[in-house]
Amino acid sequence: MQHANNLALLTDLYQLTMAQSYFASRKFEAATFSLFIRNYPPNRGYFVSAGLEDVLRFLADFSFDAASLDYLHSCGLFADEFLDFLKGLRFTGEVWAIPEGRLLFKDEPILEITAPIVEAQIVETFIINQINLQTLIASKAARCVHAAQDRAVVDFSLRRAHGIDAGLKVARSSYLAGFAATSNVLAGKRYGIPIVGTMAHSFVSSFEREIDAFRSFVSSFPDNSILLIDTYDTLAGARSAVEVAREMAARGGRLRGVRIDSGDLARLAREVRAILDGAGLPDVKIIGSGGLDEYDLAVLSEVKAPYDSYGVGTKMGVSEDAPWFDMAYKLVEYNGRPVLKLSTGKATVPGRKQVFRFVDASGRLERDLIGLRGEALSGAEALLQKVMEGGRPTGGYPSLNEIRRRFTEEFRRLDERIKAIHNPRLYPAGWTPELAELRDAVEQQVTQTQ
Amino acid sequence: MQHANNLALLTDLYQLTMAQSYFASRKFEAATFSLFIRNYPPNRGYFVSAGLEDVLRFLADFSFDAASLDYLHSCGLFADEFLDFLKGLRFTGEVWAIPEGRLLFKDEPILEITAPIVEAQIVETFIINQINLQTLIASKAARCVHAAQDRAVVDFSLRRAHGIDAGLKVARSSYLAGFAATSNVLAGKRYGIPIVGTMAHSFVSSFEREIDAFRSFVSSFPDNSILLIDTYDTLAGARSAVEVAREMAARGGRLRGVRIDSGDLARLAREVRAILDGAGLPDVKIIGSGGLDEYDLAVLSEVKAPYDSYGVGTKMGVSEDAPWFDMAYKLVEYNGRPVLKLSTGKATVPGRKQVFRFVDASGRLERDLIGLRGEALSGAEALLQKVMEGGRPTGGYPSLNEIRRRFTEEFRRLDERIKAIHNPRLYPAGWTPELAELRDAVEQQVTQTQ
Repeated sequence: MQHANNLALLTDLYQLTMAQSYFASRKFEAATFSLFIRNYPPNRGYFVSAGLEDVLRFLADFSFDAASLDYLHSCGLFADEFLDFLKGLRFTGEVWAIPEGRLLFKDEPILEITAPIVEAQIVETFIINQINLQTLIASKAARCVHAAQDRAVVDFSLRRAHGIDAGLKVARSSYLAGFAATSNVLAGKRYGIPIVGTMAHSFVSSFEREIDAFRSFVSSFPDNSILLIDTYDTLAGARSAVEVAREMAARGGRLRGVRIDSGDLARLAREVRAILDGAGLPDVKIIGSGGLDEYDLAVLSEVKAPYDSYGVGTKMGVSEDAPWFDMAYKLVEYNGRPVLKLSTGKATVPGRKQVFRFVDASGRLERDLIGLRGEALSGAEALLQKVMEGGRPTGGYPSLNEIRRRFTEEFRRLDERIKAIHNPRLYPAGWTPELAELRDAVEQQVTQTQ
Repeated sequence: MQHANNLALLTDLYQLTMAQSYFASRKFEAATFSLFIRNYPPNRGYFVSAGLEDVLRFLADFSFDAASLDYLHSCGLFADEFLDFLKGLRFTGEVWAIPEGRLLFKDEPILEITAPIVEAQIVETFIINQINLQTLIASKAARCVHAAQDRAVVDFSLRRAHGIDAGLKVARSSYLAGFAATSNVLAGKRYGIPIVGTMAHSFVSSFEREIDAFRSFVSSFPDNSILLIDTYDTLAGARSAVEVAREMAARGGRLRGVRIDSGDLARLAREVRAILDGAGLPDVKIIGSGGLDEYDLAVLSEVKAPYDSYGVGTKMGVSEDAPWFDMAYKLVEYNGRPVLKLSTGKATVPGRKQVFRFVDASGRLERDLIGLRGEALSGAEALLQKVMEGGRPTGGYPSLNEIRRRFTEEFRRLDERIKAIHNPRLYPAGWTPELAELRDAVEQQVTQTQ
């Protein structure tokens, strides 16, 4: 799983062709690039910052290995002198960023990089690849946790996450945003996330009778069994689970729960709860799963379906209703000169920035202002912190649990209307007058120069 | 990028808890699992098989390393005897599969695995993780290639693909389905895919004047420059490109093309084409990009927008309108006994299977029948091949170009109505009478037994 040594090539070819052109023109001046999300996808009112640790580790280790340089040589596009330059290239720049787990809103820089332009440009692809995915999933997962109200939500998405890396990053990003656990064993090992699991339909159908499958499973896990009861008929499955739970009780054990994975989840939960309660088993939990997302969870919460926890998989793991963010990494300053682009629908705002967050007397988030890095706005918190200098992290990496607590604490202070699952209210945010003025001045100047 | 040594843990915890229960019950009999897609997402009429090579390499290398076993031990869920068993566990089974690049349809097994049940079960998560992603992207990419008609389409998706692995697999899967190239340099190195690139808006805005950026770039790439002309004003950009093209011509060089990345792409292409043609530059190509998918490409083809090629990124790379397939890996036979599940909306069909494809006299795909493995249907091609036996591949891996040719050749023979971008016709497919009979018999028996 160690990618660090040869991920320099995980980039778009144009990063390298532009680099060769910068190199040939001896353009080595400092550039600042700003990473931000241009728009809210439908039903999104906030984003959750995630992915920074992977980016900083990538930057700190950045270099082209010999095999990569050989490949580039074989492409016939690059001059030997440039390939020699790439051989010695390291990332030496400065990074300001909003820490992982913080809430952020559209147009706000998630991170800003200042470095010699080749260094700052060449890392664009990897940075977007990681921060887009992880912020996307953390934001989707936060919606699921919110919709499930006080029920635990666990990550079951590995099988339909988009590949190996996504499987791991989805587990991390969803845990960061309040999920309780993951089914992904490698993510458990790598990130220290609690792991959970029940059984599959195939386990049940490998036995001739469902109840034999249940008996076999609980004999292996006398304290920790969750039985999947919908393979054939959910209510019959619940009655078999009751029978097995009584056998366990007679041996001094205890059935932990049952899982329902298909059908009318709200109705089945009530009927299964009634069967369990009627059998004197009020402590046996019911876990719901099967194609759930925050829209379903909100309905199940609304109708008070008696689930104790939920397994959420595919639709969270691919952020089904918004599988990408309109995230951009744009040059905002070059050699001390603020720059922008005016492309239709994709115009940018120049200058190194800071995000200022205002809270009310009770700590609730009130509004944000995006301003210039050097501004000081009294009473506001400046969100971007210097996290890398001279290509080295300025401090250690916070633990995942620390990030998770940071998220949970701040999310509690966000207005319910902005958290709404459907048609959230727009969070109040804007530009400081100084930044707006700079934008107008640069736009006018660019328009006259071209 | 070598994952092979420790990916055994990239699995759902329940695979391991079920394995412990199978182990404790001494259930080591052969099981057959079948991987298939239950339904077509909206606007999908076919799928393109992809991902088999990664699965076979994973199976051939499958083992738990010491660090993985230590982690499992630390979880407190597993008996020492079971962990010893895992230590020696290898995949020893048989795999039948539809080769990569072949067309397939809903319910058809993409692969079937027969192995001792622990082995066949434990690899489920990784198999779905890889085949779901790669088949998803190959199918989406095929739609893009089809919609672009005779124009080349290249992959620009790396930055918004879901992580590192997805970035690589999207490049491979889209190339397999007819894309001409990728911007992903590491994918170029790893898979031998042609790589392409132009320049970014940041390159243009790092110069005070757009035309200076163009001049700098073409001096580095005198034969291979594609200029991005929409940073400020696309038509003005086109005129600057003309000026630079004339300077190049005076030096004996040639401008290869211009790229338009925003705005009304159809109108701008016509106006830019007119500017280029009017300047005596009919050979300068126009490349279109900017949030394109097959729906946009179909419109651009329909109105005959004068693009020579397209860069397709995010929406293909995440399969935006269908970011997952309802792909399932289900037990269909255990210890010689055909099995099924009856879960609402997720019922399965028992038995080891084969897919039979019938073509008409001119070679056009006519219909498929899903039957039992042992059936012989005269005049039909049997799609599933034995690709692994005793845990070893039965042959070498076909080259990516061979797979790509296989796809292109078969896709040509698929009815246009099934390839339609909107509301495709349903491909004629069904079950053989023998399989249907088996299904009814097993369903009846299961219903009586439970």
